[in-house]
Amino acid sequence: MLFQNGDRVVFTGDSVTDFDRKRPVGEGLGEGVGTGYVRLIHTLLNALHPETVIRISNTGIGGNNILDLKARWQEDVLDLQPDWVSMMIGINDVWRRFDEPDIFEGHITPAQYENTYRELITLTKPRVKGMILMTPYFMEPNREDPMRKAMDEMGEVVKRLAGEYGLPCVDTQQVFDEYFRYRHPDYIAWDRIHPNQVGAMLLARAFLDTIGFSWDV
Amino acid sequence: MLFQNGDRVVFTGDSVTDFDRKRPVGEGLGEGVGTGYVRLIHTLLNALHPETVIRISNTGIGGNNILDLKARWQEDVLDLQPDWVSMMIGINDVWRRFDEPDIFEGHITPAQYENTYRELITLTKPRVKGMILMTPYFMEPNREDPMRKAMDEMGEVVKRLAGEYGLPCVDTQQVFDEYFRYRHPDYIAWDRIHPNQVGAMLLARAFLDTIGFSWDV
Amino acid sequence: MLFQNGDRVVFTGDSVTDFDRKRPVGEGLGEGVGTGYVRLIHTLLNALHPETVIRISNTGIGGNNILDLKARWQEDVLDLQPDWVSMMIGINDVWRRFDEPDIFEGHITPAQYENTYRELITLTKPRVKGMILMTPYFMEPNREDPMRKAMDEMGEVVKRLAGEYGLPCVDTQQVFDEYFRYRHPDYIAWDRIHPNQVGAMLLARAFLDTIGFSWDV
Amino acid sequence: MLFQNGDRVVFTGDSVTDFDRKRPVGEGLGEGVGTGYVRLIHTLLNALHPETVIRISNTGIGGNNILDLKARWQEDVLDLQPDWVSMMIGINDVWRRFDEPDIFEGHITPAQYENTYRELITLTKPRVKGMILMTPYFMEPNREDPMRKAMDEMGEVVKRLAGEYGLPCVDTQQVFDEYFRYRHPDYIAWDRIHPNQVGAMLLARAFLDTIGFSWDV
Amino acid sequence: MLFQNGDRVVFTGDSVTDFDRKRPVGEGLGEGVGTGYVRLIHTLLNALHPETVIRISNTGIGGNNILDLKARWQEDVLDLQPDWVSMMIGINDVWRRFDEPDIFEGHITPAQYENTYRELITLTKPRVKGMILMTPYFMEPNREDPMRKAMDEMGEVVKRLAGEYGLPCVDTQQVFDEYFRYRHPDYIAWDRIHPNQVGAMLLARAFLDTIGFSWDV
Amino acid sequence: MLFQNGDRVVFTGDSVTDFDRKRPVGEGLGEGVGTGYVRLIHTLLNALHPETVIRISNTGIGGNNILDLKARWQEDVLDLQPDWVSMMIGINDVWRRFDEPDIFEGHITPAQYENTYRELITLTKPRVKGMILMTPYFMEPNREDPMRKAMDEMGEVVKRLAGEYGLPCVDTQQVFDEYFRYRHPDYIAWDRIHPNQVGAMLLARAFLDTIGFSWDV
Amino acid sequence: MLFQNGDRVVFTGDSVTDFDRKRPVGEGLGEGVGTGYVRLIHTLLNALHPETVIRISNTGIGGNNILDLKARWQEDVLDLQPDWVSMMIGINDVWRRFDEPDIFEGHITPAQYENTYRELITLTKPRVKGMILMTPYFMEPNREDPMRKAMDEMGEVVKRLAGEYGLPCVDTQQVFDEYFRYRHPDYIAWDRIHPNQVGAMLLARAFLDTIGFSWDV
Amino acid sequence: MLFQNGDRVVFTGDSVTDFDRKRPVGEGLGEGVGTGYVRLIHTLLNALHPETVIRISNTGIGGNNILDLKARWQEDVLDLQPDWVSMMIGINDVWRRFDEPDIFEGHITPAQYENTYRELITLTKPRVKGMILMTPYFMEPNREDPMRKAMDEMGEVVKRLAGEYGLPCVDTQQVFDEYFRYRHPDYIAWDRIHPNQVGAMLLARAFLDTIGFSWDV
Repeated sequence: MLFQNGDRVVFTGDSVTDFDRKRPVGEGLGEGVGTGYVRLIHTLLNALHPETVIRISNTGIGGNNILDLKARWQEDVLDLQPDWVSMMIGINDVWRRFDEPDIFEGHITPAQYENTYRELITLTKPRVKGMILMTPYFMEPNREDPMRKAMDEMGEVVKRLAGEYGLPCVDTQQVFDEYFRYRHPDYIAWDRIHPNQVGAMLLARAFLDTIGFSWDV
Repeated sequence: MLFQNGDRVVFTGDSVTDFDRKRPVGEGLGEGVGTGYVRLIHTLLNALHPETVIRISNTGIGGNNILDLKARWQEDVLDLQPDWVSMMIGINDVWRRFDEPDIFEGHITPAQYENTYRELITLTKPRVKGMILMTPYFMEPNREDPMRKAMDEMGEVVKRLAGEYGLPCVDTQQVFDEYFRYRHPDYIAWDRIHPNQVGAMLLARAFLDTIGFSWDV
Repeated sequence: MLFQNGDRVVFTGDSVTDFDRKRPVGEGLGEGVGTGYVRLIHTLLNALHPETVIRISNTGIGGNNILDLKARWQEDVLDLQPDWVSMMIGINDVWRRFDEPDIFEGHITPAQYENTYRELITLTKPRVKGMILMTPYFMEPNREDPMRKAMDEMGEVVKRLAGEYGLPCVDTQQVFDEYFRYRHPDYIAWDRIHPNQVGAMLLARAFLDTIGFSWDV
Repeated sequence: MLFQNGDRVVFTGDSVTDFDRKRPVGEGLGEGVGTGYVRLIHTLLNALHPETVIRISNTGIGGNNILDLKARWQEDVLDLQPDWVSMMIGINDVWRRFDEPDIFEGHITPAQYENTYRELITLTKPRVKGMILMTPYFMEPNREDPMRKAMDEMGEVVKRLAGEYGLPCVDTQQVFDEYFRYRHPDYIAWDRIHPNQVGAMLLARAFLDTIGFSWDV
Repeated sequence: MLFQNGDRVVFTGDSVTDFDRKRPVGEGLGEGVGTGYVRLIHTLLNALHPETVIRISNTGIGGNNILDLKARWQEDVLDLQPDWVSMMIGINDVWRRFDEPDIFEGHITPAQYENTYRELITLTKPRVKGMILMTPYFMEPNREDPMRKAMDEMGEVVKRLAGEYGLPCVDTQQVFDEYFRYRHPDYIAWDRIHPNQVGAMLLARAFLDTIGFSWDV
Repeated sequence: MLFQNGDRVVFTGDSVTDFDRKRPVGEGLGEGVGTGYVRLIHTLLNALHPETVIRISNTGIGGNNILDLKARWQEDVLDLQPDWVSMMIGINDVWRRFDEPDIFEGHITPAQYENTYRELITLTKPRVKGMILMTPYFMEPNREDPMRKAMDEMGEVVKRLAGEYGLPCVDTQQVFDEYFRYRHPDYIAWDRIHPNQVGAMLLARAFLDTIGFSWDV
Repeated sequence: MLFQNGDRVVFTGDSVTDFDRKRPVGEGLGEGVGTGYVRLIHTLLNALHPETVIRISNTGIGGNNILDLKARWQEDVLDLQPDWVSMMIGINDVWRRFDEPDIFEGHITPAQYENTYRELITLTKPRVKGMILMTPYFMEPNREDPMRKAMDEMGEVVKRLAGEYGLPCVDTQQVFDEYFRYRHPDYIAWDRIHPNQVGAMLLARAFLDTIGFSWDV
Repeated sequence: MLFQNGDRVVFTGDSVTDFDRKRPVGEGLGEGVGTGYVRLIHTLLNALHPETVIRISNTGIGGNNILDLKARWQEDVLDLQPDWVSMMIGINDVWRRFDEPDIFEGHITPAQYENTYRELITLTKPRVKGMILMTPYFMEPNREDPMRKAMDEMGEVVKRLAGEYGLPCVDTQQVFDEYFRYRHPDYIAWDRIHPNQVGAMLLARAFLDTIGFSWDV
């Protein structure tokens, strides 16, 4: 497993990461880390590997796009002195074009997205043991849907940057696409964005597989 | 316009009709008729045609499928002695197959749907001035989506019955399909089922056009 | 229609405009624009003309008179860089004389009203594509009522200024007067000021007619 | 004063009497008698005449018309074995014609009103020391307003019956009409029906004057 | 009556005056002036004398003693530019000696009380048309009770200062003492301090008699 | 100590006993026995004498007088099969004469009180190991106060019956009278009826002394 | 895996199973199955094995002991016609002896426990595909603790019955004992009974291993 | 008794002391001092010794460890100018190692604890009449439990410092250990940290015995 005893891992992003975490930093007892995929990762790490102590901190904030995230990167990521940073961002960057088409300042282009993403990586990579990139996703099986298409563009940016910088990447969209071979999107989310526990487990499992988590104990 | 001064119109169905209406019968001042498409119909009728007094009653109940509706038809429709009945049912009949695949008793087949629908028409038609049938819908533009396909099957049943019994029919799915040429489903609903005000206005407008409402005053 | 694709329209005024809008600026998803006439305008524009994207922003604040409005004009109107400004103000300026006769500083004279109104127009007109003036009103059919008389004086000011500056004007009082030929004021408001949905639709329709909105689609 | 030490007085009617009284019978400590005119009568009786103990009971129910009142007369008036009964009813009987013109069963004609009122008097008068009739009212100064006209019709019925049966009568409409020579209706009620404390004091004072209450102590 | 059309009267003091008034200044519609004796004064003035417009402002604050009052005198009394000031203070100055005997800084001696009271009068009298002094009270009929004795000492100070400066004085303790000839203290207050409506009416009536209010209209 | 390992003690009475106990029977973990004197007795028994297990059950109900208590005696006392019964009743029997002088059915005479009390004793004594009688009280030091006098009459009844039937009796009034030599009633209760924790401890201590509780452990 | 496509599994027991499940039967969308170990089982089954549809129903009720469970067995287990029944009961049977030592009827002896447990098995086994027994537990590592000892006695009963009837058994106590080699009980529960998510995952994992769940997909 | 008439005693510490006390300083009427052991001390002092007035102030804050306490020592202890200071701190210093093993900054070593504790004593002792030290505790009877062991280490520090500086010390751990000879920890706390009323009485009694409180009056 990538993480070692004593490591601190900061998860950051938007509402999918946030899920009602504690402020200012989501960690500790109870629902400190929220009730989304971060909690399931926290739960599985601590239930199956109690011999390893890893500090999980969640600084996702609902509604954030990559510009919002950049604005608070110093305070909410670097100042926490993480060993590892996991980020999932980009959903709102795309979504707002479709549900608030009139509010232009909320629409992020792929170029803005890529440039800002790159900035965050170059700023962070030298100061941590590693970063894990999670692509944004849209739980829409139809690849011709315009919002799905736009989200795929963002996902491509993330995968390309992961390759370029040699970072582990969780292709969340692919995880959901495979799941939709068996179940309908409505089974794991009401709005195709915010996963219920089953959807969150899909994200958690993919993340854990990526970092080499051992399920056999 | 189909409706005349002094007529009573009962709208019934599921949560799309209900939208937090008053119990036991949704009517009267304030949000008595709920806050969905029924209220917009009520608003437009009374704002543009104050010379005509029409009683709007709403007996939709969230979560209902056609069997639930049949079970309360006497009390919630016939006992109100309506002049007109408008019904929109079938969404939950299909939806539950996809979001609760394990709870079989909530899955309604097209045959059950058609037989029960027919029963309600034959029971009601002789006792009212007329019935208006509104098809169920799924705000999913992709016709290959399995839930959309299943919903289209139900919509076909409604349109066929409307033709057979000579009843006016509002093809709500078509209304939304046309709208999706310009905007994404996420603009009018979070879950592709429950319309926000813009989505509700699309339903209201289609209904009013069907009954010959005059927009010029 | 006056408004074109990409335009931003700021509605401002008192509680009739506000209607529980989001702070600091009322816009976006859900009930961001409040639940009054501004929402109905937003709903009809987006339901009937999805091909045109217009940004609707609401900065009405309950209880405001024209002096309150002037005090926040820079921040709540000009700073938003609107293409169009719609304003409805004056009701509280008159109302307070009648329900709080002892609190003199809340009583605005027609002269104060006219001078301030003129200031706002001269400050704003050169910086926008256009302004739409909506008269204040009192849903009191009796023109001899002293509060109605005083409100009519304010309405005259607005209509005169609209003529003088060549601005479109919505004569809201006339809209209600016509409606009262058929229905009693209690049908559309409990307090003869705050319209329910039917009353709000009367305002919305009059506004939309004024800007050349097409009801046929 | 009509009332004597040890007497029980039951006030009944609609929301103007009710004003959030305790259930099932409004009496006793605190806000047991509600917060409307009945409480002011209770307050003045007990503050200025502590030497006399009079039991005040309130059984008004919001929304009631005369048919609703009749339906519960036995339980809410006669079973309490009052020495005196004060009733004020009729506002909703008229109001519903104007704010719910479509719901016919809520519209009470003057004839229904008179017949039912007469029934209640003939049933009650022999069993009590006396009844006090309070006319319904509409805080609308314009006597040509159709709802005011309809309310005046009801008031005439009450005054006629009071004369016929020799009962004291409080002409509440006249009380308000005189007040409107100085202040606007909006000063004492938001909806021209439910009085604030000032309006309630006008009712209380008129009632107390009618029963020969002494203000000098 | 002392007060004339257009006068502003500021009532200030502790919780007996406050009674949940609006902040920062208690005035205007609804329960702006609180629900205690100040509201009853407001109600009676406006109900019986609508021809006279008097502005009632309430700046009582629960828990205040005379030092607290002095600390906010500029802001809460003088800055409001009253024509008349009515003050009732001193209850907490005494009460805290008995219910919080251990918290010494809350115990005010008669000397502190008198000196501070005198300061407030000399500061205020030249700037207003007049001041009305209301004695503190304890609804305890037993004059040998130590808290009653201590309160009487304070009352004596107020009456002496009123005489010395020629100001009208409401002897509230005497009002209650007379009432207790007929009713027990528990009838008008649970804690012998905070009057219910009947107790508040006793205060209001005494105040109104003192200012020459006419009950006949 | 009167109570022995395994005994069940039922405390019953009015709000002083109740103090928000659990329904239907106040016992068990947390605040099951309420937060008044019964809890302090429970706390002291279990903290100082853990070697003895005694079941404490509370069935006091706020507002009860002796007739209310008799009506539920079978269900709330005898059916619980107690070894010991402690009762404190009579406060409301007297209080209502003073705070609700108009509601006669709530006024209990000493004769009614004595007869009913006697009935309860004769019904219960043969079925239990013993009864403990607690007198009602009024935290009023002035023995000439009419409510205190009336309460003393009730207390005399209890003490006389205790003597007659040879039952232990807690003279609660005497406990408070002694305390008032040092502190004012306002120190232990706001309304001279409902004790705060200090007042409740006085009751608990007197009870425990009566049953021979050992404070030295 | 024991469970097959289309099977219904009913989980029943006390608060550890309940965890705020929906009433009357805990199943379906959202938190229908509660938020404890049952939800984690539901989540893992549906996330990792979407090809298999299994109906999970939860009828645990907080505070239940085995007698409470027996009393509702017909309605809450058999009437649901399950294919599989999983039960975990016995914690409260023991706990009440220690936290409510005075309330004897809540103390269940091992003999009562065994006899009742046996009854439930013999009644149920012939009507289902299988039963899974989960032992009660106390998250107390010290085997000499009297409550732990008593719980172990109950656990022995369950393991013995499982052997006797050939039923799969989850030894939950052993699961926790192993975990305590690495972490303190306070890490997974505040009260050593109600597991947080980490504790619930330990239960879920042990259950899933017992039924042959495959973690590799 | 150590405390004399007029003394002020400040209790400070963590949640066991806090127990929902008033902010900023916990004192005065009602639940000002919280609902834990401090209130019981307050209650017993004032109920049994009304002749002595002692001011009890509570500045405990939930979650505090000794570093948190030091950070606010000036404001929350010294600035209050106490005659006596009672402190109980150290539980969280140990607990966090076990329930939040990953958040290192919350883990306090015995050396940090001792040094900081010593600082507080040397800073405070010269400025007060005396200090009372209460050891931290863990309601865990098993002395081999690692958290109990760690807590005992802290308790040893406190006892050693008390001896060194000649300060009275309450050995709270010993109090609970003796109690556990009769009852299980679950009888007095759900989480072995926060005592219910019975547990709080054990602390209060031990404290009062330490200061020479007389139970006989």
